[in-house]
Amino acid sequence: MKLLVANPNTSTGVTDRLVAAGKLVASPGTELLPMTAPRGVPYIATRAEAAIGSAVMLEMLAEKRGTVDAAIVAAFGDPGLGGARELFDFPVVGMAEAAMLVACTLGRRFAIVSFAKALEPWFAEIVDWHGLAGRCAAIRTLDEAFRSIDDVADEKEQLLVDLAVGTVKNDGADVVILAGAPLAGMADRVKGRIPVPVVDGIQAAVVMAEGLVRLKPRKATAGTFKRPAAKDSKGLSQALADVIGHRGT
Amino acid sequence: MKLLVANPNTSTGVTDRLVAAGKLVASPGTELLPMTAPRGVPYIATRAEAAIGSAVMLEMLAEKRGTVDAAIVAAFGDPGLGGARELFDFPVVGMAEAAMLVACTLGRRFAIVSFAKALEPWFAEIVDWHGLAGRCAAIRTLDEAFRSIDDVADEKEQLLVDLAVGTVKNDGADVVILAGAPLAGMADRVKGRIPVPVVDGIQAAVVMAEGLVRLKPRKATAGTFKRPAAKDSKGLSQALADVIGHRGT
Amino acid sequence: MKLLVANPNTSTGVTDRLVAAGKLVASPGTELLPMTAPRGVPYIATRAEAAIGSAVMLEMLAEKRGTVDAAIVAAFGDPGLGGARELFDFPVVGMAEAAMLVACTLGRRFAIVSFAKALEPWFAEIVDWHGLAGRCAAIRTLDEAFRSIDDVADEKEQLLVDLAVGTVKNDGADVVILAGAPLAGMADRVKGRIPVPVVDGIQAAVVMAEGLVRLKPRKATAGTFKRPAAKDSKGLSQALADVIGHRGT
Amino acid sequence: MKLLVANPNTSTGVTDRLVAAGKLVASPGTELLPMTAPRGVPYIATRAEAAIGSAVMLEMLAEKRGTVDAAIVAAFGDPGLGGARELFDFPVVGMAEAAMLVACTLGRRFAIVSFAKALEPWFAEIVDWHGLAGRCAAIRTLDEAFRSIDDVADEKEQLLVDLAVGTVKNDGADVVILAGAPLAGMADRVKGRIPVPVVDGIQAAVVMAEGLVRLKPRKATAGTFKRPAAKDSKGLSQALADVIGHRGT
Amino acid sequence: MKLLVANPNTSTGVTDRLVAAGKLVASPGTELLPMTAPRGVPYIATRAEAAIGSAVMLEMLAEKRGTVDAAIVAAFGDPGLGGARELFDFPVVGMAEAAMLVACTLGRRFAIVSFAKALEPWFAEIVDWHGLAGRCAAIRTLDEAFRSIDDVADEKEQLLVDLAVGTVKNDGADVVILAGAPLAGMADRVKGRIPVPVVDGIQAAVVMAEGLVRLKPRKATAGTFKRPAAKDSKGLSQALADVIGHRGT
Amino acid sequence: MKLLVANPNTSTGVTDRLVAAGKLVASPGTELLPMTAPRGVPYIATRAEAAIGSAVMLEMLAEKRGTVDAAIVAAFGDPGLGGARELFDFPVVGMAEAAMLVACTLGRRFAIVSFAKALEPWFAEIVDWHGLAGRCAAIRTLDEAFRSIDDVADEKEQLLVDLAVGTVKNDGADVVILAGAPLAGMADRVKGRIPVPVVDGIQAAVVMAEGLVRLKPRKATAGTFKRPAAKDSKGLSQALADVIGHRGT
Repeated sequence: MKLLVANPNTSTGVTDRLVAAGKLVASPGTELLPMTAPRGVPYIATRAEAAIGSAVMLEMLAEKRGTVDAAIVAAFGDPGLGGARELFDFPVVGMAEAAMLVACTLGRRFAIVSFAKALEPWFAEIVDWHGLAGRCAAIRTLDEAFRSIDDVADEKEQLLVDLAVGTVKNDGADVVILAGAPLAGMADRVKGRIPVPVVDGIQAAVVMAEGLVRLKPRKATAGTFKRPAAKDSKGLSQALADVIGHRGT
Repeated sequence: MKLLVANPNTSTGVTDRLVAAGKLVASPGTELLPMTAPRGVPYIATRAEAAIGSAVMLEMLAEKRGTVDAAIVAAFGDPGLGGARELFDFPVVGMAEAAMLVACTLGRRFAIVSFAKALEPWFAEIVDWHGLAGRCAAIRTLDEAFRSIDDVADEKEQLLVDLAVGTVKNDGADVVILAGAPLAGMADRVKGRIPVPVVDGIQAAVVMAEGLVRLKPRKATAGTFKRPAAKDSKGLSQALADVIGHRGT
Repeated sequence: MKLLVANPNTSTGVTDRLVAAGKLVASPGTELLPMTAPRGVPYIATRAEAAIGSAVMLEMLAEKRGTVDAAIVAAFGDPGLGGARELFDFPVVGMAEAAMLVACTLGRRFAIVSFAKALEPWFAEIVDWHGLAGRCAAIRTLDEAFRSIDDVADEKEQLLVDLAVGTVKNDGADVVILAGAPLAGMADRVKGRIPVPVVDGIQAAVVMAEGLVRLKPRKATAGTFKRPAAKDSKGLSQALADVIGHRGT
Repeated sequence: MKLLVANPNTSTGVTDRLVAAGKLVASPGTELLPMTAPRGVPYIATRAEAAIGSAVMLEMLAEKRGTVDAAIVAAFGDPGLGGARELFDFPVVGMAEAAMLVACTLGRRFAIVSFAKALEPWFAEIVDWHGLAGRCAAIRTLDEAFRSIDDVADEKEQLLVDLAVGTVKNDGADVVILAGAPLAGMADRVKGRIPVPVVDGIQAAVVMAEGLVRLKPRKATAGTFKRPAAKDSKGLSQALADVIGHRGT
Repeated sequence: MKLLVANPNTSTGVTDRLVAAGKLVASPGTELLPMTAPRGVPYIATRAEAAIGSAVMLEMLAEKRGTVDAAIVAAFGDPGLGGARELFDFPVVGMAEAAMLVACTLGRRFAIVSFAKALEPWFAEIVDWHGLAGRCAAIRTLDEAFRSIDDVADEKEQLLVDLAVGTVKNDGADVVILAGAPLAGMADRVKGRIPVPVVDGIQAAVVMAEGLVRLKPRKATAGTFKRPAAKDSKGLSQALADVIGHRGT
Repeated sequence: MKLLVANPNTSTGVTDRLVAAGKLVASPGTELLPMTAPRGVPYIATRAEAAIGSAVMLEMLAEKRGTVDAAIVAAFGDPGLGGARELFDFPVVGMAEAAMLVACTLGRRFAIVSFAKALEPWFAEIVDWHGLAGRCAAIRTLDEAFRSIDDVADEKEQLLVDLAVGTVKNDGADVVILAGAPLAGMADRVKGRIPVPVVDGIQAAVVMAEGLVRLKPRKATAGTFKRPAAKDSKGLSQALADVIGHRGT
C-alpha cells in the first residue's frame, strides 16, 4: 500500500527524517511517499504558522488524491487534519493523533516532550482538539536555542532524555511521546534510557495508517465528516479548487 | 477609532450587511472599515473552508496593520483568530467570541442559531476552542436549501425565529445568538418575537472591540500570545511574509 | 448613560477608588454613580461575608431601579449577580465576570492576582460559577497583613507586581487580572512592569456595561433569568420587597 | 444529640413537615429542633430568594450556636451552607447535599424531581456547586400552579410519581430525589410506586448529620473552611455580628 | 443491626483493626461482623490485585446474604462495589466511597493520604469511578518500605501526619482522608496534629451504612443497578453461582 | 507474530466468531490464537460479571505468557485490561479500547451500538475509564430477547442496522462501533447500509495489536504500569500466583 507522508514544513531534511524513521516499522509492501510543503515556513511552531500550514496541507493532499491509499499529516499539531477528513475519501491520520492514540494503549497518561517552548500552545490546542487532555500528564519542552532544525534531535538528545525522565518522575507520565517532526527516529535510539514506553509520532502514524487501510472504512455520507457540497472558490490552487468544486473525481 | 471588519468570505454583499449592522451600535467617532477576502469561498461553512479562511485572514490583517486600532474577524467561527492574536499588536476580536462573551452576561446558557446544518461542526469546534461548551445550551440550524447567501436572512426569517423560540423552550437557552455573518442585523428586527435576549455577532464584536481599544491592553511579550520569533517563509503574501519575518514595522 | 457602581463593601474609600479608575475608560457621556453598602463588612473576603453582601446588593439595586441604565456589582466575587439578573430589567455586570470575559479576548488563560489569601476560596467559586475554570491558570494572593483596605494597593504594589510576573512565568498565564475592589486603578500604573496584558476589574466592567447598554438587550420573559413571579415577603427592605412583590414598577 | 432543623423559608407549615419526616429515621436519643426563618419569603424558589435566604440562614445559625450538636440547612438549595461551614464549629449539612451524597451510594446517577419549574435554575446551581453534575441524570419539575405550599405534596402526589417514573425510564436515573422542603415525608408514601430507590432530603440530612456528630470531626484551622478572622460589621443581627466579630464565644 | 465488614485482603490483622476502629463510632445496637478474604493477597495495592479482590468480594457477600442488614467493602479502592450493588438487595457501601462522601460534607476538596506509592493509581481510579475527581485535591503517599502491613500505621504515624500537614498547605486540601484498611483507627489518634478534619474510612463507612439501613431504600427494579437476569455459570463458588443463577433466594 | 485472542466469556462459539472476523484484516504472518474462559458466564453483560471476568482474564493471560507477542482482551468492556497491563511485558489491547481509538481517527464522535440493554452500564463505565466520554455520542442497544448468544448477530442484523442509522441521525455520531464479541464480523456485512464508517471491535484490536508489536514498546519500569513488586498470594491459579510472586519468568 502507498502512504503519503505529507510534511507541511518546507524543510526537506525533516521529510527525509520522517520517511527514514517510518520505514523502520512499516510492513513489507508498504511504500512511504514523501512530500514537502511547497510554501510556508521551515518548521511550524505557532498557531499562526499552523493556520498557514493547514491550508497548505489541503493543497498538498488535493494534489495527491487518487494516487495514495492513505495520508499522514506529518507535523505534530496535525495542521489541516479536520478539513482533510471532510474533503478526501482515503484515510488521513495526524501525527499527533496517532502518537496519542498509541500512547493511550501503553499507559494512563502520556507526556509530550519536545525541543522548543514555542511549540507548547500549539501542541496544547491539538491535545484539546482531540479530546485527550484528560490523558495528557504534561507538555514539556526545552527552552533554549538550537543550531538547525534538521539536526536538533542529535544536538539536544541528552537534554530531551533528561526532560523525559523528569516528566515521568514529576508529572506521573506512563508514556513519553517525543513530539515534533524533527525528532522523528529519535525514540528508537533513546528508549533504553527512559523508564517508560516512548512513542515516535511518525512510527505511530505509519502503523495506524496501515491499520486503517486494512480495515477499509467507508467514506461517510452523513455526520460531520461527510464531503461538503460543491462550492465555487477564488484564488485557490487548481487541485484544491477542483476538490472543493467536486471536479475531476 | 478605526475598526477593521475583516470578512474572510469572498462575498461583498455579506460585508455590506456586517458594516450596516455594526454601525447601529458603534459609538460616535468609531469608523468601521470593511474588507472582503480576496480569495477563498463565498461563505465559509466547513472545517476545510475555515482552514483556508484562517490563512487568508492572516494575510488580510497583515495588509492593514498600522492603519487600524482593532480588528474584527467577521465570520462566526473566528478563522485565524489565534494566529492573529500572536502576530499583531492591536486587539483582534472574533465574532463568535464576542457574541458568546456578551451572551454570558445575559444568561447562563446560550443557544447558537443559524441557517445551514453544514455550519454545526465548525461552530461546535469554535465553542470548544473558546472553552465555553459549558455555557452553550445547543447549536440549532435549519436544514434546507436557500436561494442566496446575501439574503438568506430575509428568506428564512420566520423559520429562524421559530428555531430560536424552540431552543429557548426545549434546550433551556437563556440567550439566543443569531450566528453567521449573513444574519448580521437580523437580531434587531426579530428581538420582539423571541422571549430572551438575542445577540448579533457583529454588534457584539463592535462593542467588545471598542471596549478593548479604550482599555489599551499592552501587547504580550510573554505567555502564549507573545509575538513569534522572526522566521523566513516561502510563497506567502508579501504583507504576511513581512509580519512573520519581522520586517516593515 | 448612567452606570451604577454598587460597592457591596461598606468602605467608601473603596468606592472612591472604583469610580476614579472607571472614569479613565468611560466614554464621553457616561456617568458613573457611586453607591456604598449601607450594611455589611468593610470588605468582603469570605463565603459568609459574600452571602451577606449578596442580599445587601439586591437591596441596593432595588433602591436605584428606574434611575440607571445599567449596574455594576463592584466586588470581585460578584455577590448577588445571579439574583440581580433575575429581578431587574436593566443590564447588571459583575466585576469578576467582566474582568474574566475581557481577559478571554486577550489570552488563553488568565491569572487572578490579589492581596489577601482569604479571598481565594470565594474567587475560586465565582470562577466556577461563571463556567470559566478552564480559562483560569491560577489564583495567586499575598499572604501577609496590610495596614488598611483603602491603600493596600499602594502598600503592596511591588509585591503584587512580583506575584503577577511569577504567575505568568510559572502558571502559564497569558493575562493577569488584578482582582478585588481595593486594587481598582492599579493596573494602569503597573502594566509596564508585567509582560502580559493586565485587566482592571472596574474598567472592564465599565466598558462591558457601556457595550450592553448600546446593544439594548431585551429583558427575558423565558429562560432562567425571567423575572420571578410576584411573592409576599417579610422583613426585607421596602425597596426590595416591592421588587419581589411586583409593586411600584 | 440535638440537631437544628433550620428552615430558611418563612412557612412554619413546611418546618412541621420537615421535622415530622425527619423523626421517622432519627436514632433514639436524637432531638430535632425546629426553627423557621424570621424574615424572607414563604418558600425560596429563585436565585434572588436564595441570596436573601443565605444571609438569613447565617443569622439563624448564629442565634443557636452553642445549643446544638449539628445543624441542617433545611431547604434543597442549601442556602448559606458555604458560609455556615466557615463560621461555625459544629457540623452543618445541607439538605440537597445530604440527599445527593446518599443518592450516590444507591446508584450511578440520580434525578432530582420537584414541584415547580421555577426551582430548576437554583437546583442546577447547587448541583454544580457540590461538584456533582456528573452524577445528576436530570432535574425534572412540574410546570403548573398549585394551591398551597403547605400541601403541594399531597395535591401533586400522582403527578410527581409519574414524573419520577418517567425520569427513570427516559433519563437513565438510578435513584430519585424528591426535592424541596415541601415534599418532606413524601418518599416513604410513594416508594412502592417508583422502581428505584427514592431519597427524601430531610431524612438523608438527619442520618448524615447524626453520622457526622458521631465522627466528631475537628473544626478546621487551615484550608478554605477555617474560621475567618474577626471583623467589624454594620447593620447585621446582633448574633451574627458577634460571630463575625469573634465575640461571645 | 448487623453490618458485614468484608475485608478483601487476606490479612486477618487488618480485619481486626477495621472492626476495632468501626466500633468506636457505631451506634448502640449495631453489630460489626468481621470477614476476611479466603483467597487473594495480604493487601491489595494494584489494579491487578483489585481485579482479583473484586471477584472475591462478590463471593464473600454472596456467602453472607440473608444474614446481614448491610455490608461494607472494607478496602479503600472499593473492589467489587459496582457488581455488589447489582447483585444484592441489602445496602453495600465502599470504604473509599464513604470516606469521600463524608469528606465532601467537611470541605471543598479532600486529600487522600496513604502509606504506599503503589496504591496511587488504584486510588486515582476509584476517585474517578465515583465521579469525585473535582473534589479531590491530591493523593499523597509515602514511598518507602515498611515492616508489616499489620502495624504500618504505628510505624509510619509521624510520617503520615507530616504528609497530611503538607497536603493541606501545598494542595489546598480542606479535609484529609487517611486511606487504606491498614490505617483504620489512626485518625482518632492524630487528629489533633492535623489542622483540618481527618476522615477514617471504616468509621465513615459504618455511619453511612447505619444511615442507609435506617433510610430503608428499596432495591431497584429498573436503572443500572437492578438485579441482572438469571444466568448459568461455570467454575464459580457455589454461593456466587446461586446468586447469579437466582437460586436459593 | 502470535496474537492471543482471549475471550473472557465461556462461549466457544463467540471465540470462533472473533477469530474468523479478526483473520480478515490480519497481516500475512499474523497468527490468531484462540482462548476461551475456563470459568465464568457464557457472555459478560454486567458489572458483576465483568468483575468475575477480569480475574479470569488475568489467569488466562498468565497461562499464556511467554508464548505470544501480544494479547487481545476480547470482550467489549475490556475486563482485566488495567491489571494485565501491569502484570505482563507483552502488549495487551482491549477490544473496546481498540475500537474507540480507531473510531477517533474516523470521526469526531462515535456511537456504540449493541444487542442488549443490560450491557449499557458496563460499556458506559469502560468509555469513562478510557477517558473518552467526550468522544462518545451515545450508547444505543436493543431491548428485546434473543435466541442465542452465538447467532444474535444474524438474528438481529436489520434491527442493529436501524439502530446504527438512527444514532447517526439523532445523536450526531460520525462513526458507529458494533460492540460486543457476539457481533464480531458483522461490520463488513452491513457497512453499505450505514452512512458512516463502521468499526468492528476485534478487527480494530487486531490491527492495533499488530501495530504495537511492530513498534516494540519497552515494558515500563516506572509509572503506574510498572510491574508490581512480588507478593505472596493464596488460592489463585498457579500461573497467576507465579506471575504475582515473580516466579517462573
